[in-house]
Amino acid sequence: MKIGIVGYGNLGRGAEAAVRQNKDMELEAVFTRRINENIRPYSDGVKVEKYENILKYTDKIDVLLLCGGSATDLPDITPFLARYFNVVDSFDRHSEISRHLERVDACARGGGKLAVISAGWDPGLFSLARIYFAAALPDGKTYTFWGKGVSQGHSQAARKIKGVVDAKAYTLPDKSYVRQVLGGLTPELSAGDMHKRECFIVPEASADRQRIENEIKSMPDYFAPYSTAVNFISDSEMRLRHSSMRHGGLVIRNGESGINKQNRHTAELKLKLDSNPEFTAGVLLAFARAAFKMNKRGESGCKTPADIAPADISPLEHSELIKAFL
Amino acid sequence: MKIGIVGYGNLGRGAEAAVRQNKDMELEAVFTRRINENIRPYSDGVKVEKYENILKYTDKIDVLLLCGGSATDLPDITPFLARYFNVVDSFDRHSEISRHLERVDACARGGGKLAVISAGWDPGLFSLARIYFAAALPDGKTYTFWGKGVSQGHSQAARKIKGVVDAKAYTLPDKSYVRQVLGGLTPELSAGDMHKRECFIVPEASADRQRIENEIKSMPDYFAPYSTAVNFISDSEMRLRHSSMRHGGLVIRNGESGINKQNRHTAELKLKLDSNPEFTAGVLLAFARAAFKMNKRGESGCKTPADIAPADISPLEHSELIKAFL
Repeated sequence: MKIGIVGYGNLGRGAEAAVRQNKDMELEAVFTRRINENIRPYSDGVKVEKYENILKYTDKIDVLLLCGGSATDLPDITPFLARYFNVVDSFDRHSEISRHLERVDACARGGGKLAVISAGWDPGLFSLARIYFAAALPDGKTYTFWGKGVSQGHSQAARKIKGVVDAKAYTLPDKSYVRQVLGGLTPELSAGDMHKRECFIVPEASADRQRIENEIKSMPDYFAPYSTAVNFISDSEMRLRHSSMRHGGLVIRNGESGINKQNRHTAELKLKLDSNPEFTAGVLLAFARAAFKMNKRGESGCKTPADIAPADISPLEHSELIKAFL
Repeated sequence: MKIGIVGYGNLGRGAEAAVRQNKDMELEAVFTRRINENIRPYSDGVKVEKYENILKYTDKIDVLLLCGGSATDLPDITPFLARYFNVVDSFDRHSEISRHLERVDACARGGGKLAVISAGWDPGLFSLARIYFAAALPDGKTYTFWGKGVSQGHSQAARKIKGVVDAKAYTLPDKSYVRQVLGGLTPELSAGDMHKRECFIVPEASADRQRIENEIKSMPDYFAPYSTAVNFISDSEMRLRHSSMRHGGLVIRNGESGINKQNRHTAELKLKLDSNPEFTAGVLLAFARAAFKMNKRGESGCKTPADIAPADISPLEHSELIKAFL
């Protein structure tokens, strides 16, 4: 399988490294809008191409990994490219997935290609856990906890405040609720109950710190529903202590069974990740394999991880898969 | 969906309870070879039929749940019934799955029906975790720990020893290895290293306990590779203290990523079950739904959970599924 990478930020670089871990894949080219000397692939021989030239590669690439952002890049480039290539993205704006799916589906069908969207860990593997757990335990309650890890969207929102030079916003799960839920309890909780936020802000020298703190804490949707701590730090401390890409989280379902619902069950998926973008890239590549296999079988259109049989993401032949994993 | 249950032991009774938790399903009949007064369904109006009459129901049942044992029942009845019905079983003899798959596939294709085998938690949900984790983290090591819980196969093996009236064999994970692996380490471990066994034996009054203990501890495959404790107890203690159906386990993959494989990731699926047969029944029913949907679309043959898109096990319409779970 020949792979192309579109976008060469953290996720794109993670994808480049991940391709080398998959023996059935080869990196054909990296596409970026901003070619300069800093764009240096890890591997010799990998072409770096202007994004504008991408349609010259329709015959040379089996699957494109779309490593742009969900806010502004993917809503445009996934539908556009799905007409010409099998594509995979990790579109993560939960409330917009249905619309994205519809638009990408029309384009992929038009071009006879297969697209997979939202193939990361949430949405992605966490979505699958929610589906499997709910199907096996129809009476129950599912909880998703994220963190500790940096939220890109919240960091960007904080960066837009006047007087802020740089900002990182962490999402932290409420540990006492995690313990309660893992212990089998099923409290009624909002996302605001389940998580706290912690912001690290590099302010301009003359900025009014109290105003910045107030603006962050009162920002609707982003910070207002959460218990939020705001810390002011120097630029060097930001670079030294807040460059980690660590993240993770848990999906937990507590369900009951039996004729009187007398028996309790807890199903839990937990991820502990040193590098959020590199793990996400690993998931992207697994579903890139499925896109390739399914399109080879004549399928087209837009799929999510929920629409793909697990066997299709594995590099093993079916008979080997049964022996190795079942 | 009209459901039929074949076999009315712990799993069959768990399935009866689980049908009532799935609003899109209805129990049509329970089939058993040994009809007597003790066979009393929980719900009024559920027919109890002799197994011999099952082929009269081909038009009345959408999916049959095969709730027999993997040692002697399923190798015969799954292929036989797959010719006439959509069927689901939880066949759990890992080394025999390929052969079972082949035999059931031929029969199901012959009859234009869809069969799903090995749809429990291991094989089943644990198999899926192993597939997803390995695909997302190609460089890494996967561990499966079972227990604490009763192993039916090992209990039966101990019961066959001369002088044994009753026996229960528990599988226990080695907690220090669980901790090591959850902490990110990747030791080389055999199943014997990872688990201990604990047997509770009701001996005949005159039996030679030392001989029984020696025979258990030296039984190849079953107990010899494990650190095994043997305890002799009374019949009443057995009934009082060893009737729990609790079980559970963990699938853990520790993998690495990055251009120098400098980043570590831990993915973990954990189940904590009050009732092994009732949870297994819940999984069976979820895959029964998939069998029904797939056969309706014109598919036939034998599938495993690895061959089934997660969306097919969910009761939700596709658009609702995207909104609820992705």
